[in-house]
Amino acid sequence: MSIVYLSRRATFCASHRLHSEKLSPAENKKLFGKCNSANGHGHNYILEVIICGQLNPKTGIVMDLTKLKKIIEDSVVARVDHKNLNLDVREFKSLNPTAENMAVVFWEWLEEALPKDLLYEVRLHETENNIAIYRGE
Amino acid sequence: MSIVYLSRRATFCASHRLHSEKLSPAENKKLFGKCNSANGHGHNYILEVIICGQLNPKTGIVMDLTKLKKIIEDSVVARVDHKNLNLDVREFKSLNPTAENMAVVFWEWLEEALPKDLLYEVRLHETENNIAIYRGE
Amino acid sequence: MSIVYLSRRATFCASHRLHSEKLSPAENKKLFGKCNSANGHGHNYILEVIICGQLNPKTGIVMDLTKLKKIIEDSVVARVDHKNLNLDVREFKSLNPTAENMAVVFWEWLEEALPKDLLYEVRLHETENNIAIYRGE
Amino acid sequence: MSIVYLSRRATFCASHRLHSEKLSPAENKKLFGKCNSANGHGHNYILEVIICGQLNPKTGIVMDLTKLKKIIEDSVVARVDHKNLNLDVREFKSLNPTAENMAVVFWEWLEEALPKDLLYEVRLHETENNIAIYRGE
Amino acid sequence: MSIVYLSRRATFCASHRLHSEKLSPAENKKLFGKCNSANGHGHNYILEVIICGQLNPKTGIVMDLTKLKKIIEDSVVARVDHKNLNLDVREFKSLNPTAENMAVVFWEWLEEALPKDLLYEVRLHETENNIAIYRGE
Amino acid sequence: MSIVYLSRRATFCASHRLHSEKLSPAENKKLFGKCNSANGHGHNYILEVIICGQLNPKTGIVMDLTKLKKIIEDSVVARVDHKNLNLDVREFKSLNPTAENMAVVFWEWLEEALPKDLLYEVRLHETENNIAIYRGE
Repeated sequence: MSIVYLSRRATFCASHRLHSEKLSPAENKKLFGKCNSANGHGHNYILEVIICGQLNPKTGIVMDLTKLKKIIEDSVVARVDHKNLNLDVREFKSLNPTAENMAVVFWEWLEEALPKDLLYEVRLHETENNIAIYRGE
Repeated sequence: MSIVYLSRRATFCASHRLHSEKLSPAENKKLFGKCNSANGHGHNYILEVIICGQLNPKTGIVMDLTKLKKIIEDSVVARVDHKNLNLDVREFKSLNPTAENMAVVFWEWLEEALPKDLLYEVRLHETENNIAIYRGE
Repeated sequence: MSIVYLSRRATFCASHRLHSEKLSPAENKKLFGKCNSANGHGHNYILEVIICGQLNPKTGIVMDLTKLKKIIEDSVVARVDHKNLNLDVREFKSLNPTAENMAVVFWEWLEEALPKDLLYEVRLHETENNIAIYRGE
Repeated sequence: MSIVYLSRRATFCASHRLHSEKLSPAENKKLFGKCNSANGHGHNYILEVIICGQLNPKTGIVMDLTKLKKIIEDSVVARVDHKNLNLDVREFKSLNPTAENMAVVFWEWLEEALPKDLLYEVRLHETENNIAIYRGE
Repeated sequence: MSIVYLSRRATFCASHRLHSEKLSPAENKKLFGKCNSANGHGHNYILEVIICGQLNPKTGIVMDLTKLKKIIEDSVVARVDHKNLNLDVREFKSLNPTAENMAVVFWEWLEEALPKDLLYEVRLHETENNIAIYRGE
Repeated sequence: MSIVYLSRRATFCASHRLHSEKLSPAENKKLFGKCNSANGHGHNYILEVIICGQLNPKTGIVMDLTKLKKIIEDSVVARVDHKNLNLDVREFKSLNPTAENMAVVFWEWLEEALPKDLLYEVRLHETENNIAIYRGE
């Protein structure tokens, strides 16, 4: 029985403002700089969802790719694509939408929708220079 | 005397909402779909500025690259990076910030700042799938 | 009135065999080498469709992007995606499916479906090294 | 003694049809959709081979890169490039050529050809969205 | 008879120092900054050679791709790959190896080797941000 | 408390010559081939620095990104960008500047500058085909 990892990529466009309610305005400005600008900015996010499981010898796959695509679409992309994360997405109304927090929230959304113990890693590319990675640890 | 083209890439992150004041809310919704969502969304834009001119036989360049970088930075990037285009950028307060309009506005900003007759083409990548191109025609 | 170009990218996966009915088997083998192997091979093709038209001052666009996407999907992608070009696509049953011929055929399909005089260029990437470009000339 | 990982990329073009002999035609159609179409389709595959070993303090390398390139070329690329996986490659005549199965088969081919215990990971990109990863587990 | 453009990509690695014999040391330093540092630096160059010609109705190609690859390899890549441009390449011993000058020199090398009137454009990517383009004008 | 990984990308251009003082000229030539050419060659290197730490629930980050960028810039990029590694960088005057050795040296530079226990992985892309990875093992 082979253990195989499968990575599936999706993309979405969203706006956000980095701002923590637990910091003062001055602290927010100092820590997040131009990412704290009042009216927000945005990104073309790239999401990689990596699952890990036993290779089914009958089918040659770890999981039905059509189902995986639909789960990523329904659990994550539909909730954030073409949205303002701070204003339109319940989880980020009081949680700072950093790439790190987004990776953790997306993990939770995906884990709920995927078959048990399949999810291995969530990689969220915010720009071509920044990637946040979460493995449920 | 050789004519050479030089393309210089820059990137910026911004949010926008596609919405034309000259259309009704229903028309905006119909034409722009989720790009019209009320609180906006955003992109990692890639801007390519292409100049065209005579190759200087003494230096081997068309234009001082440090100056070109600074002009792109000052004329375009500084005005739009980490901004909400509709709310923060004067030109787009009444002009719909489509990739097409952005390419035209950036051309105007660049043409004013560059030596006469050097600017050849502005390419604005909104996503990995959409590029607007303007040549001043 | 500004003239703006808009490039829209689509992708599809297909298999093909380079083989011209107008050449002998030996000529085919000599000219196309391993691309002539009997059972075919395949590619992840990238198609860029570039339209050119007047920027509508009311909407800020050249053409409704949703319509352009649908035309590319219906006119090209649906006919070739996950197909064997030589066996499954009428046009290539007797026409060698080179990147060059594909670009010309896709131009014809697109020109028929798009509003008159909008189509400017078809770029077909066969691999990361090879691109065929057709402008209807 | 430092442990260093080295990743080497190769590319090849092949066609395949997802179809398992252990499933009925209806099950194959349901599970693989258009990837099951009778005459096959194809991809530009990207293969990343990652080795892991001690850094040789005399040479500054983990393994002679020319040898690694030749092993990847001889063990994998020469067997699959410009081939129809289902018809031309012995291993996939009765094994469904999914990205997952391909990663496992390539691991076996590479492990046989590489010095003992060097191979760490095989990453096979089927499209820009799908990657199968195998670590010999 | 259709006119089709075909772009072929090649890569090479080289070092260079931007320095013009026609400028004083101070002028060189001012104009080229860190690119003028005494011991040079280097790049992974990407070269795109675009030819333009009539589509041969018998073969479905503009030019034998194997021949085009060999001409690019022999005329350009073999002369510059893994070389120090200023010290190892005759043309750049007295000519500043800017991307602009390289594009012009490569055009001359390619034009000599290619069938008459086929060469349309040379694109030389020095980094992901800088591209020099020459069309023989 | 969640453990999150954050990857930050930087780029630099440098020249080098693969040559080990501990090998004879013939051994160097045999092992490194054209990478051993006397006057060197160069690359556009891509450096990915991956840190791993606890997600701060107050700020939503693992580490101040502005500080991380500055550390990468000061500790690595400023020392190697637009340099000849063999001649201009103290560490590589007697150490062969292979991608493997560079990854180890960069790890040491970064570990000294970063808060304790944050550094997880250094990935150095020498070309689009070669990546050296070091995790401090």
